[in-house]
Amino acid sequence: MIFVGILTNLKKEARVVGFDDAPFRKGIDHETLVVGTIYRGGQFMDGVISTHVKVDGHDATRKISEIVVRTKFYPQLQAILLDGIAVGGFNVIDIWQLHEKTKLPIIVVIRDYPDYEKIEAALVKIGMRSKINLLRKAGEPEPVDEIFIQCAGCSQQEADKIVRLTSTHSHIPEPLRAAHLIAGGVTRGESKGRA
Amino acid sequence: MIFVGILTNLKKEARVVGFDDAPFRKGIDHETLVVGTIYRGGQFMDGVISTHVKVDGHDATRKISEIVVRTKFYPQLQAILLDGIAVGGFNVIDIWQLHEKTKLPIIVVIRDYPDYEKIEAALVKIGMRSKINLLRKAGEPEPVDEIFIQCAGCSQQEADKIVRLTSTHSHIPEPLRAAHLIAGGVTRGESKGRA
Repeated sequence: MIFVGILTNLKKEARVVGFDDAPFRKGIDHETLVVGTIYRGGQFMDGVISTHVKVDGHDATRKISEIVVRTKFYPQLQAILLDGIAVGGFNVIDIWQLHEKTKLPIIVVIRDYPDYEKIEAALVKIGMRSKINLLRKAGEPEPVDEIFIQCAGCSQQEADKIVRLTSTHSHIPEPLRAAHLIAGGVTRGESKGRA
Repeated sequence: MIFVGILTNLKKEARVVGFDDAPFRKGIDHETLVVGTIYRGGQFMDGVISTHVKVDGHDATRKISEIVVRTKFYPQLQAILLDGIAVGGFNVIDIWQLHEKTKLPIIVVIRDYPDYEKIEAALVKIGMRSKINLLRKAGEPEPVDEIFIQCAGCSQQEADKIVRLTSTHSHIPEPLRAAHLIAGGVTRGESKGRA
């Protein structure tokens, strides 16, 4: 199901949710926190939702879609932003399935162009070859200003538009910047900025 | 130690931290999360800090002052905002001690004028009579627009100024509004707005 055109009436105050995961201790933590911040445009934080996913697990797509469709803001949401395509290590999100389950455009924001060869070798090494498919299915990351994006359920142009609309204080959309600060800050006691 | 005048050079981008606590299950949880959001003025979230305090305990003043002086933003901080004078139930904050430990003005934001008679009776009933003193020491809540404030380490005028400067989207300062959404959202899975 493809929703090209869903964002044509995008308003400055459009509601979007941005997700990032918390840091976790390798070999110790089995789960990690995933935080979603709901923003109106790039200025106003409207709400915070959260869930826990298995480290290197397979539940990220299901867990994230569940909290999206359950939140009271769901009827107003216009897009889902993800900070990278995986949470909790290699818990890779199937962005096409996430789009299908939520009926929302999915936009993956990538800070540095991924070294796919290295990532795929790592997945093979830890016996997660099946996840290579999810990475490839997400398509080629396209440059927008200083970042790259992938999308499912909207055109590249529409994705650009929503990224620019929500990037008020840096080249990273505010909902993602905030989700990153929150996930780190409540888990480690102090956040570390990246943008 | 009184720092009247510390805020006279207050800029629009002044850094302040606002604290709120997470909901907890009475009789089950022994501790609860306290979240601090660091804002530049009323627009830009700069960082998130957090700690845990005992439900109905005595450690809130110490725990909060510790994370304030430890954060990398401490040298730039100009004030501490609190959403009410207690966290984790009756873990009452000694705002004068918090001011002394952090050398920062403390501003308590109160949504509804407290029913002191009822609170003091409750404290006596649960054997926490000593905390009545902390409540009284904090002074009379003064009205500012639709809320009330108490302060330690700055004048009422200075406190008014910082509250107005940071209240961009409602009559509640943004750092407190965000801390409330975050504490609820990461603990319960979805935040509940109050402002």
